[in-house]
Amino acid sequence: MKEKKILLNERDIPKQWYNLAPDLPTPMQPPLGPDGKPVRPDMLAPVFPMNLIEQEVSQKRWIDIPEEILEILYRWRPTPLRRAVYLEQYLKTPARIYYKDESLSPPGSHKPNTAVAQAWYNKQFGIKKITTETGAGQWGSALAFACNLLGLECKVFMVRISFEQKPLRKTMMRIWNAKCVPSPSQETKAGRDILKRIPDTPGSLGIAISEAVEEAVTDKSGKTRYALGSVLNHVLLHQTIIGLEAKKQLKIVGEKMPDIVIGCAGGGSNFAGLSFPFVYEKINGAEIEIIPTEPTACPTMTRGEFAYDFGDVACTTPLLAMYTLGHAFIPPPIHAGGLRYHGMAPLVCQCIVEGLIKPRSYNQIKCYESALLWARTEGAICAPETSHAIACVIEEAERAREEAKEKVIIFNYSGHGLMDLSGYENFLSDKLVNYSLPEEELKKNIASLKNLPKPKMQKSGKW
Amino acid sequence: MKEKKILLNERDIPKQWYNLAPDLPTPMQPPLGPDGKPVRPDMLAPVFPMNLIEQEVSQKRWIDIPEEILEILYRWRPTPLRRAVYLEQYLKTPARIYYKDESLSPPGSHKPNTAVAQAWYNKQFGIKKITTETGAGQWGSALAFACNLLGLECKVFMVRISFEQKPLRKTMMRIWNAKCVPSPSQETKAGRDILKRIPDTPGSLGIAISEAVEEAVTDKSGKTRYALGSVLNHVLLHQTIIGLEAKKQLKIVGEKMPDIVIGCAGGGSNFAGLSFPFVYEKINGAEIEIIPTEPTACPTMTRGEFAYDFGDVACTTPLLAMYTLGHAFIPPPIHAGGLRYHGMAPLVCQCIVEGLIKPRSYNQIKCYESALLWARTEGAICAPETSHAIACVIEEAERAREEAKEKVIIFNYSGHGLMDLSGYENFLSDKLVNYSLPEEELKKNIASLKNLPKPKMQKSGKW
Repeated sequence: MKEKKILLNERDIPKQWYNLAPDLPTPMQPPLGPDGKPVRPDMLAPVFPMNLIEQEVSQKRWIDIPEEILEILYRWRPTPLRRAVYLEQYLKTPARIYYKDESLSPPGSHKPNTAVAQAWYNKQFGIKKITTETGAGQWGSALAFACNLLGLECKVFMVRISFEQKPLRKTMMRIWNAKCVPSPSQETKAGRDILKRIPDTPGSLGIAISEAVEEAVTDKSGKTRYALGSVLNHVLLHQTIIGLEAKKQLKIVGEKMPDIVIGCAGGGSNFAGLSFPFVYEKINGAEIEIIPTEPTACPTMTRGEFAYDFGDVACTTPLLAMYTLGHAFIPPPIHAGGLRYHGMAPLVCQCIVEGLIKPRSYNQIKCYESALLWARTEGAICAPETSHAIACVIEEAERAREEAKEKVIIFNYSGHGLMDLSGYENFLSDKLVNYSLPEEELKKNIASLKNLPKPKMQKSGKW
Repeated sequence: MKEKKILLNERDIPKQWYNLAPDLPTPMQPPLGPDGKPVRPDMLAPVFPMNLIEQEVSQKRWIDIPEEILEILYRWRPTPLRRAVYLEQYLKTPARIYYKDESLSPPGSHKPNTAVAQAWYNKQFGIKKITTETGAGQWGSALAFACNLLGLECKVFMVRISFEQKPLRKTMMRIWNAKCVPSPSQETKAGRDILKRIPDTPGSLGIAISEAVEEAVTDKSGKTRYALGSVLNHVLLHQTIIGLEAKKQLKIVGEKMPDIVIGCAGGGSNFAGLSFPFVYEKINGAEIEIIPTEPTACPTMTRGEFAYDFGDVACTTPLLAMYTLGHAFIPPPIHAGGLRYHGMAPLVCQCIVEGLIKPRSYNQIKCYESALLWARTEGAICAPETSHAIACVIEEAERAREEAKEKVIIFNYSGHGLMDLSGYENFLSDKLVNYSLPEEELKKNIASLKNLPKPKMQKSGKW
């Protein structure tokens, strides 16, 4: 019998997060302020609590996970490592396909791994309220879940069009005691300004970020901070528990090291969570192919430029050195809302520049075909984002069959699709189209970056 | 540290189902045909495959689970036994509260435990296609899931009003390769007759059952059968894997025997699945309080009559000896669609008559209050049906506090509520009302049974 679930007991959960930053061959390019000078940690203090800022800039390889955070993670962690034996059989592949099942958290994705940690550190720092933005709602509901458990107030600015299209995401947040308002709202200056200019705007993540940050920094009590669900170093750090658990679980079934590691990447956190502990092995000599995947409709890593750019449309964040399609880029309305971001986590981008990982892109219909094959073989319904990892898994499993090679593939099953079934309905009814970014639009967007500072980093080309 | 999840390895899964029938103090009252005579097994052959009919009438205490069924169950079983430590803390109760988490199956409830078994036995018998009805959609999607895994065709008649209100349940079934049509449909005589008389009918479970049975028995190839998701003996049998796993898991954490066992009951299968292995212990001398719970809006067990009645509104099924509100009873539109049934599994009813179990009823608002407290302490969002178990758990945990007694409570967490968030939204917006069945309506419905045969069974009063 092939074991289908490799379980880990609570006592075997990793007790430290893994920080990739100190192990990178070339040091990270620093975030820059509006003056082009590196941002000092204290400049971020009105936005984030100092203990998280310390993690953001930390050069320690291992960072202890506080016992109280572990106690909360035990509610659903360690997550099982599963083996996709039915997909293997269907594909007649000699590859062994494993996946970390992050869909089992109460909000249904990997997001609470960092939501819980961020809420806890905020509480430690004396913060009473956290603000954030959300697009499709995965992150907003994860933060609502975490804040509720820790007794913090939570306010989520949800992009208006999503707020209206996905009213039940708001219900999830209400169940967990959070306040969720459509953005732009009348509750911030940024929101009111937009509404005055464009009363019927559908909203955007860029506007929602501006509102959430404004509400945090203008709270006179000083007890409110802002939280981000991906992109930043400390967010990726909190997700590494996924890959660290996976390593222990692979050992249990006698697999030495995977040949291929795959994760979808929007801001980069679920990909980094699984892969960074394996990037560490690669830096130390292991031969592993590590692949972040993205939509052809929003091809940040595969067609974007490595450049300094803003994290938001309104140009209010520090400049980050990352692959970007330009901060003004508005992605087409693909169903994988979590992969519609113009930038990418700087840590992930530096791995690309260093040649440690190699991104690929997939179009929407191929991803839904992969998701459907997954549901009909393995049985579970994946999130539209996750289907971008599965498309790559299938590609690699078929390659292994053609090459007749016994490969070990592992990927991150970042979330279930039960809140996103309308995309499947459209796919099954032949109503989906593929998008790809026209070259001239890409060039125009990238050109908008020409007056910004340039990263000094060289390609190391070492790998 | 209190262990929050008690896991069981695949190799420790129970290898046999437990059949309560031979252990009951008084033999079961037989199902009767339209002539008032006991139904012979061969009379059911056009509806169910003979191997399942044999299970339906079996008097063997232990029935082997075929290895191939176990192989499929391993996809999500054994399910964790969890401890609700946060609810305990909130209630300041000395009770230890455990629950089997059946929400982890791909369709999100306990239903696939029997859907997989039924599909497998049908396939063994040479059947190519299974028909069924579904109300809210839990059962229909579970059967779709199972048939897809086994390569059987599946057709689901979904009550029209639910088909329109919950279009995404249909999407789930389509993902798993099933055909789901609104009932009444043009595809059966029963459906066409109703549509001719009442073109804009919202449909009902009674009509949908008639359509599904008709489509099965009129298939000239003889390769189509009908499947039911609850009520019948063999359906309850397949669910006993829940309680058998729970017993092993309680032993792992050193709990000898629970003091209280709780499950919600619509047709009775999730309640029976957890509780029957403990009913066995009670028959053999253990002191356990066993409580099936139901809505005050549909108080079958607490206010219904123990009588022979039809399983459907159209009076096409055999007569079953059970607690019933009368087959003509139309329950009010509470959100717990799975608990809106006028009858109850005969095995569960006989346990009530014997005094082995004691039902309770809860109103809708109390149940949502309990569900909300659950989500805000334990973190997960439960199905509206499951909230009827949680309401009772909270009541008993509070009683334990008042009595200062260290009790062990276990209940069945039958499913998640992610497909039913609109009920929560209504609750949070103060739009819910409580229903209770007026005494005169109850009397009128019960009176309609007066010309049917009466069960000969006496109350044993032994317990």
